[in-house]
Amino acid sequence: MGQCHCHKKRKDSQELTDVERAIEIVINNFHRYAVKGRKECLTPNELRELVVQQLPHLSQHVCSLDEKIECLGDPDEAKLEFGEYWAIIGEAAKGCRVKK
Amino acid sequence: MGQCHCHKKRKDSQELTDVERAIEIVINNFHRYAVKGRKECLTPNELRELVVQQLPHLSQHVCSLDEKIECLGDPDEAKLEFGEYWAIIGEAAKGCRVKK
Repeated sequence: MGQCHCHKKRKDSQELTDVERAIEIVINNFHRYAVKGRKECLTPNELRELVVQQLPHLSQHVCSLDEKIECLGDPDEAKLEFGEYWAIIGEAAKGCRVKK
Repeated sequence: MGQCHCHKKRKDSQELTDVERAIEIVINNFHRYAVKGRKECLTPNELRELVVQQLPHLSQHVCSLDEKIECLGDPDEAKLEFGEYWAIIGEAAKGCRVKK
């Protein structure tokens, strides 16, 4: 698997900015839970676990997260790509930023 | 302005998980650069500054960032909302995750 420049930099994280390190944490969190099936994807159940364990304060800002997860398909088979994970977190972050 | 639960939690960030703290850093970064015009938006020039200063390693993964920024409109007048900022960072993160 081709590792990119950013991954190589991880060993020397002094070079990364605070924001880059923060982004790396959010990326690593995806990989930490994406263990079943294809490693590049989360199943709906893995996503649910991730949100409950890692985003307890933010999850309240994701409208009807349970409904969303149910719509993703088979809880153990459906595949959620990184971009979808990122979008869900973005929605939580947006809700968190300013109360509507 | 209505501050949400998450913002109140900032004073007691022990309660936030590492991932939540990381997300907060990315959110705060938006506000740090969104100083001109409406505070809830970045101008294209502010975005460019943010990327150059805060995302030096990730910016190489955003395809033709300069072109993208030019397409956003007037460099000092166009308004980029939080969701667009989040999507641009997500694209960089995706590029960083696995080399295509």
